[in-house]
Amino acid sequence: MSSDATGIFINETHTSAAIWQYRVGKMLLEGKTKFQTYQICEIPRFGKSLFLDYNIQTSLLDEYIFHECMSQPAMTLHPNPKKVLVCGGGEGATLREALTHRTVEKAFMVDIDEELVDMVKIHMPEWHRGAFEDPRTNLVHTDARQWLIDHRDEKFDVILSDLPNPHEDGPAQLLFTEEYFQICADAMSDDGVFAMQAGSANENYPACMASCIKTLESMAEVFPFVAGYYGIVSTFFQPWGFVLASKQHDPLALSASEIDARHKVRGVSNRYCTGRFNQALFTLPEYLLRAVETEGRILTDADPFVWDA
Amino acid sequence: MSSDATGIFINETHTSAAIWQYRVGKMLLEGKTKFQTYQICEIPRFGKSLFLDYNIQTSLLDEYIFHECMSQPAMTLHPNPKKVLVCGGGEGATLREALTHRTVEKAFMVDIDEELVDMVKIHMPEWHRGAFEDPRTNLVHTDARQWLIDHRDEKFDVILSDLPNPHEDGPAQLLFTEEYFQICADAMSDDGVFAMQAGSANENYPACMASCIKTLESMAEVFPFVAGYYGIVSTFFQPWGFVLASKQHDPLALSASEIDARHKVRGVSNRYCTGRFNQALFTLPEYLLRAVETEGRILTDADPFVWDA
Amino acid sequence: MSSDATGIFINETHTSAAIWQYRVGKMLLEGKTKFQTYQICEIPRFGKSLFLDYNIQTSLLDEYIFHECMSQPAMTLHPNPKKVLVCGGGEGATLREALTHRTVEKAFMVDIDEELVDMVKIHMPEWHRGAFEDPRTNLVHTDARQWLIDHRDEKFDVILSDLPNPHEDGPAQLLFTEEYFQICADAMSDDGVFAMQAGSANENYPACMASCIKTLESMAEVFPFVAGYYGIVSTFFQPWGFVLASKQHDPLALSASEIDARHKVRGVSNRYCTGRFNQALFTLPEYLLRAVETEGRILTDADPFVWDA
Amino acid sequence: MSSDATGIFINETHTSAAIWQYRVGKMLLEGKTKFQTYQICEIPRFGKSLFLDYNIQTSLLDEYIFHECMSQPAMTLHPNPKKVLVCGGGEGATLREALTHRTVEKAFMVDIDEELVDMVKIHMPEWHRGAFEDPRTNLVHTDARQWLIDHRDEKFDVILSDLPNPHEDGPAQLLFTEEYFQICADAMSDDGVFAMQAGSANENYPACMASCIKTLESMAEVFPFVAGYYGIVSTFFQPWGFVLASKQHDPLALSASEIDARHKVRGVSNRYCTGRFNQALFTLPEYLLRAVETEGRILTDADPFVWDA
Repeated sequence: MSSDATGIFINETHTSAAIWQYRVGKMLLEGKTKFQTYQICEIPRFGKSLFLDYNIQTSLLDEYIFHECMSQPAMTLHPNPKKVLVCGGGEGATLREALTHRTVEKAFMVDIDEELVDMVKIHMPEWHRGAFEDPRTNLVHTDARQWLIDHRDEKFDVILSDLPNPHEDGPAQLLFTEEYFQICADAMSDDGVFAMQAGSANENYPACMASCIKTLESMAEVFPFVAGYYGIVSTFFQPWGFVLASKQHDPLALSASEIDARHKVRGVSNRYCTGRFNQALFTLPEYLLRAVETEGRILTDADPFVWDA
Repeated sequence: MSSDATGIFINETHTSAAIWQYRVGKMLLEGKTKFQTYQICEIPRFGKSLFLDYNIQTSLLDEYIFHECMSQPAMTLHPNPKKVLVCGGGEGATLREALTHRTVEKAFMVDIDEELVDMVKIHMPEWHRGAFEDPRTNLVHTDARQWLIDHRDEKFDVILSDLPNPHEDGPAQLLFTEEYFQICADAMSDDGVFAMQAGSANENYPACMASCIKTLESMAEVFPFVAGYYGIVSTFFQPWGFVLASKQHDPLALSASEIDARHKVRGVSNRYCTGRFNQALFTLPEYLLRAVETEGRILTDADPFVWDA
Repeated sequence: MSSDATGIFINETHTSAAIWQYRVGKMLLEGKTKFQTYQICEIPRFGKSLFLDYNIQTSLLDEYIFHECMSQPAMTLHPNPKKVLVCGGGEGATLREALTHRTVEKAFMVDIDEELVDMVKIHMPEWHRGAFEDPRTNLVHTDARQWLIDHRDEKFDVILSDLPNPHEDGPAQLLFTEEYFQICADAMSDDGVFAMQAGSANENYPACMASCIKTLESMAEVFPFVAGYYGIVSTFFQPWGFVLASKQHDPLALSASEIDARHKVRGVSNRYCTGRFNQALFTLPEYLLRAVETEGRILTDADPFVWDA
Repeated sequence: MSSDATGIFINETHTSAAIWQYRVGKMLLEGKTKFQTYQICEIPRFGKSLFLDYNIQTSLLDEYIFHECMSQPAMTLHPNPKKVLVCGGGEGATLREALTHRTVEKAFMVDIDEELVDMVKIHMPEWHRGAFEDPRTNLVHTDARQWLIDHRDEKFDVILSDLPNPHEDGPAQLLFTEEYFQICADAMSDDGVFAMQAGSANENYPACMASCIKTLESMAEVFPFVAGYYGIVSTFFQPWGFVLASKQHDPLALSASEIDARHKVRGVSNRYCTGRFNQALFTLPEYLLRAVETEGRILTDADPFVWDA
């Protein structure tokens, strides 16, 4: 019976409003790296899932939605993405999505947590699907921000910022700031496209996403095109927000058929980010537009966002 | 601290995958009618909220999203809605939304649970906002389906079916079937518009919504236009599905400016269902389209949907 | 079904080992005084129950066990208790138990939380049963320690210290120290008897009780007889510890028949603290004796016990 | 912080009154036998612990209390226990305790769940401590009741019935009945001693223990001496009940020093069931005596106890 109280659960808090108890059908693996604890387990209906520090990250049910959103709109928008960088992205699925574009010649992934990625390679093949073995892939384990400064001459066509939420005392706070976005811009080609995961897109906690939009919008000379969008991630019990920032290409100028054509020629076959769905994807509900006005603020190294959800 | 385990909670199950613990800041009222138990309480960040049989129904944070979705697309689509019927809709907020259209001359609300509505009148003014006192309102407490059969000559312009999910042994199972939809059609004017809440729109439990779409689509001679849509209800921890079925008017044929114009002339001012958002509102993600194909089935009195989420 | 996950719960933590979810059948009353929050609710099988700051205090199922333990062994031990003091004891049930001894001429109760006691008078008659109206009763609302200093000449025969656990930042930390016990001794008659609630008596968290025993044992010139005992309080999901300290009378010297005779002559009729059970009551399990040795320490104002369970 | 809501938990229900969430520090092992699911995990403060079908069975903190109670009073009472039988007892700790008596020449353990015992041998050495390798041990995996019928000529000095609670549809219902007790009696020597675990000894759910006492008391020609007792098992959040039934020897006739002497000569050194504590051990609180009167009934194969706690 679905309402049986007994069993194993992983509990996650969602602001002060709720505690979510995910039912664990089977615990597959537990461990701890220098940076975080992890569990891989089976959840009924969601399937195999990953938790980091008791926050669910991904499940087989809809990991494709998160990872297509993380990767595909930016990749598709660029007319010829050859050099791609994934910041973070431990499961290898954002990298996997980027690599579906045949145009890609070189893909870097910079994730600080080598132990986690080593574990993922063995225990989460459904996510990376061989992406780490792709000859185009270069995997680096270091701080993404410093690495970007050191490699600004690479001039990436696309940068995908798939980083943990900016928790207090966490490693990602300075990867959600104006300064970081500028570093990314400096390391991108003249028509480069940047996309980031930006936190919850629901009305209960839109402040992080709203602030990411506001911050990127404030950099109009660098990124004339900024567009928020969200994916419906059932596993997170909330829609999840992303922001795309682009130096030359307007994400809303691409028609559905142009998108489908690009996918076809590049060998891409999406399940969520389709041509048909693209306009809807980029149309934010009114409350998010209001949140940008009322709750959004410009995030800086001196005053970054502190996640409290 | 938001992750404090201690306190008062109302626990709700979401399929076999999860239990949600809503934190109760203050219990305001508890009771029991002939049909259901209820609690009104304060939830941090969500504000005043209503639970029925330990399922959250609505919170002040985003009740407008659910109730606009329930009411506004259908109301706006009809060129001149004079006679409106709300089936169910206990909080009075679906009725409230319908009444925002100045064209309305007569609004019926048929909700079987008189004790609940009496309670709502006193304790949930933020929801009904006087709708029950509106001179156009006719409030009836009886079974909606039988009442519709008895009043088929009323020929409603709009019918809004705001009913509980079709739980086993619950009163609503036969209000999610082909036969019920036909009864509604019979009681509608020649260009009538029907809308219903149809259950979860997330990928974990799309079967009810998918089956409502499939069933209404199978009635093409009655309803040539059928369109699913969803509202992002943070309070439910999932997007919520609705289906609109229309005898003559195509919901996708209305432009944003036509919608805004209709709202303006009728005195309507929406926060979620705006002209700008209308196309996006009606664009379902791919997984819902697939679910209609793979999980949707035609619901009948003999074989209705049995909610198990 | 008893394992149904849905419903209303009050969650309490029990050390880092567990969270207990008490199922609320009905919330009867909620409120907040200057000192604490409270809920009165119905719990299945336990009946009407009181929570303070989300810690269960008492239920109708077995409040008699806690309150007899709090009051009866000390009262019975004294050969002629005329003047009694209850420190704390908000529900009035410790007072009620003391008053069952016909010998009592004057009973003081000093509880700092007037708002709580006022609430109890109205909403918890099953606990006080008129004790507050007893002509022998004197109810005072102030800090018990200071009041004792000011009233040391009263020379009480029995002092019952029914105070909250010594939580960090709570009001009771300095009511579990050597200095407080000395103040009590000073305010007692030459053959006075002191009893206190001393925290959990289970093996998971015996440190508070062990330290209370150790501290009182260290005051052998004042209290030559010190004896720990415990009551099986189902409502607390653990046995609960008490300590009796006596100036002249040895609690283990009383035979079962002497106890029964005293009860008879004084009009006392206990359900837990009977003559038959008295020896067993005062026989601590080995782990508590070991805990006194290994975890017990002398509690002082400078270094009081800090509850963390 | 001990009240942190986030983390991994195993949830157990305790009647309709409560759900207990045990915090899992680390999941060590999970599995499933033909008869039950199991988890071995670390719980803060309790240490390594075993769950069967999501009911906690034992933890390192106080497994000695349960297993001494299960084994020692019966073993000590018999003046010369040579042949011992453990029915159930999967962890091997009841067997281990029996074997501490040097008098034992042959010890049988009959546990139906071979897969579980095989797992225990490898993963729970802290419990069995080599008992399965003891040359006196005979381990059999079959139904205990049928085995006893087939081996009634063995004439055991002590039979220890360490079986799961009599859950509906569980394997143990007919191992808590008069007929089973008679089968045990038939397989015992003329001065044999029988002991069983009998369920909760708290006031919330005493019916099972009360019925076991009542049933054994009704067999006075077979067992003239019947005595209930309980152990304080912190891990279970309740005192746990046992019943001893004896053909010739009176458990209350043994003095503390006789017990200590027997322990000494047999090489036994207990941590809970000491001579000092023996009288207290066998002194039930009044509510259990009342429960035998009011809730106890004679359990038979036709009308066994059905556990619902």
